Amino acid sequence: MATMKPAILDAALRACTRAQTRRPAFRNTAQYRPQVPCRTQRRCISDDARPPLPRGTPGPSKVVAPKTRLAVGVVFIGFLIYSMATGDNQPPPPSTDAPLPRSGQQLDSPSIADRDSLSKRESGVTARSPMRLRMEAFIKETQQEIVRALEALDGSQRFQIDTWDRPNGGGGISCVLQDGKVFDKAGVNTSVVYGTLPRAAISKMRVNHKALDPDVESLEFFAAGLSLVLHPQNPMAPTVHLNYRYFETANQDGSTNAWWFGGGTDLTPSYLFDEDVIHFHRNIKEACDAHDKDYYPRFKNWCDEYFSVKHRGETRGVGGIFFDDLDETEKDQESLFAFVQTCLGAFLPSYLPIIEKRKDMPFVEKEKQWQQLRRGRYVEFNLVHDRGTAFGLNTPGARIESILMSLPLTARWQYQHEPEKGSREERLVNILRKPIEWV
Amino acid sequence: MATMKPAILDAALRACTRAQTRRPAFRNTAQYRPQVPCRTQRRCISDDARPPLPRGTPGPSKVVAPKTRLAVGVVFIGFLIYSMATGDNQPPPPSTDAPLPRSGQQLDSPSIADRDSLSKRESGVTARSPMRLRMEAFIKETQQEIVRALEALDGSQRFQIDTWDRPNGGGGISCVLQDGKVFDKAGVNTSVVYGTLPRAAISKMRVNHKALDPDVESLEFFAAGLSLVLHPQNPMAPTVHLNYRYFETANQDGSTNAWWFGGGTDLTPSYLFDEDVIHFHRNIKEACDAHDKDYYPRFKNWCDEYFSVKHRGETRGVGGIFFDDLDETEKDQESLFAFVQTCLGAFLPSYLPIIEKRKDMPFVEKEKQWQQLRRGRYVEFNLVHDRGTAFGLNTPGARIESILMSLPLTARWQYQHEPEKGSREERLVNILRKPIEWV
Repeated sequence: MATMKPAILDAALRACTRAQTRRPAFRNTAQYRPQVPCRTQRRCISDDARPPLPRGTPGPSKVVAPKTRLAVGVVFIGFLIYSMATGDNQPPPPSTDAPLPRSGQQLDSPSIADRDSLSKRESGVTARSPMRLRMEAFIKETQQEIVRALEALDGSQRFQIDTWDRPNGGGGISCVLQDGKVFDKAGVNTSVVYGTLPRAAISKMRVNHKALDPDVESLEFFAAGLSLVLHPQNPMAPTVHLNYRYFETANQDGSTNAWWFGGGTDLTPSYLFDEDVIHFHRNIKEACDAHDKDYYPRFKNWCDEYFSVKHRGETRGVGGIFFDDLDETEKDQESLFAFVQTCLGAFLPSYLPIIEKRKDMPFVEKEKQWQQLRRGRYVEFNLVHDRGTAFGLNTPGARIESILMSLPLTARWQYQHEPEKGSREERLVNILRKPIEWV
Repeated sequence: MATMKPAILDAALRACTRAQTRRPAFRNTAQYRPQVPCRTQRRCISDDARPPLPRGTPGPSKVVAPKTRLAVGVVFIGFLIYSMATGDNQPPPPSTDAPLPRSGQQLDSPSIADRDSLSKRESGVTARSPMRLRMEAFIKETQQEIVRALEALDGSQRFQIDTWDRPNGGGGISCVLQDGKVFDKAGVNTSVVYGTLPRAAISKMRVNHKALDPDVESLEFFAAGLSLVLHPQNPMAPTVHLNYRYFETANQDGSTNAWWFGGGTDLTPSYLFDEDVIHFHRNIKEACDAHDKDYYPRFKNWCDEYFSVKHRGETRGVGGIFFDDLDETEKDQESLFAFVQTCLGAFLPSYLPIIEKRKDMPFVEKEKQWQQLRRGRYVEFNLVHDRGTAFGLNTPGARIESILMSLPLTARWQYQHEPEKGSREERLVNILRKPIEWV
């Protein structure tokens, strides 16, 4: 089986670089989109200028407390955590900036949101900034890179960009390109959440995390994540998903209490090109191997387990990696941040060469219909099995459009459809029923 | 607002009658479908000849034990109950007839499945048969009527009929018409289940039903239901759903322990024709009023509550009725059976006049796309909120194709789609956000 040529990879990376030099940075993109008016709940993007991202010195990570498992899939992470934290039936809409009463701190001490806000204003984000700020800066920078590369690839239109603030600090940026030349639907979201875990939520967590002090009245938390789903138009080109996230709880003095990283990326083709899957997996494996030789096999299996459409007895796609709860029991914070950075950095080289090769391939109506049936299965996984989506949808006031940007533009359910014996469609299904090793 | 003319109603009913006289009974339909081969798991329908359905004398309904709430939506009821009953991770495939060990009875006493089977062989189904057999016979007869009427209406093709037996007694009949002239997808299912609630399941039930004896090792149960979902091709024609079901548990001597009826029907238009919705609701109201003047308002509200796409803040459609757990605390068994019979009998007159009027209306591409977006919401409700679907999909070995026949053939998710101000689409959404009284 052939493998991806380095030349293609180089070309893909050059495409990203071209996009970067062809026009101003992403943070000004809104200026070029006069057709999308700024509305009450849609604010055109205008990030403050930031210093270059440092990738060095650790933040204040004296970690002692246990962790909480959080599976967010592609979901707008903030609402999940907001709900988990507050159990509130009526959280204020995300576009308002009115401060909420905070139970997670003494009234005379500043929240971590206040501290971070002050720190950003005074000294920007540096290598000495807390991991919260470094992760936030990193995912926003990566979001810009990815959006630029995908716009350059699609060529037909720009991403629609919606930004919003959260009342207690943080906010989100949803970038969606729809009905494009290459992509039916492409969504790239970042979100940053500051909130409070009340006693009830901590009690719930203690079911799995006995070390959590039952006497703590509340805990401040921070979460930041980048989520991405790309559904190409051409049935020969695979759908891809990615999500990387960081979670932290804070002690009353603002110091870090518990922290962990989670994330992963996986590929969902309608038609199998072994060389594409091998390229994708090899790329991820290289990213993993650079940090720990055990990561790829562990996280590859975890991915096959998590992205399982259980009621169909199939995986959603041909996998990739998935991990959660990577904390100080795994490695130190800097090492894990570096790992996540490598993974995110590997995304464009892992996917662009594939989409470049497949986006203009000829196909017939029957193949388009098969893609639509596979998209139906994608919808089934996301709506039935993805814990993060379920959690998000059940959160009153959640930004549903950001959560459901993961769904394809169109999907199909055909009663009793069976692939023909010996067909390419049948081979795909067989592999989804029994995942294989690709590298 | 105009109401439906009786003449149209008459015409609709005549259409059913014509269909009935034009060709032999439904149970022989398979003979006319040589293009669909019988396969291992697809058995062509061949019901035994049955005596005419009696609608009189009560079955052996000495009811003492409490009931269990079961929301099945359009789901193939059998698997739900099987799962609830056994908690088994690997139930045998529904097509096998091998008997399973039964924990719900003494080994020397026949099961209710055995008793019913013997009773049917010896004397058929009469007015003195247990309610189980009368309900089964009634839903199968109604399924045939509905399938005949819908085939006559569509005109382009026959329903695909799949039947299967369940290992412990009972079985199912799935009738699906796909890519027809009038219907994108039309599914009409019946299912009959005999099973056993083990101690663990009874213990779980005791959370809500304290009167259940914790010392009972197991309870035999029976369930039978008819489910229907019709998705028309024309965006002006509404989707309709219906489900009526009967549940019973048995004492060790085979006598009835607890029993109840559940069900309902609801309409989901993409474009609102008030006269259609009024006709639909008036028809249901008449069916309800014939039995109890309180039923329609109670069950209309219950329907609006149940079919709520909570994360969107909308109802799935313009409602109808929904009820569950109607037992001896409501009315005697005969009265409730009569009520369910009236409701089922009202279905064709409630829907056929609407589809006849709308099926050939002109429409433009934009209207078709709106229908597709609304179908996306239908998928969201069924996969995220419908308790029965969730339960069914999480049941290993369930017949997924029967559960998911409720999903539309195609659906669409468009990021941030908003209906135009003052448009028909906006009016529909406003009504879904705040259900109104139609009659």
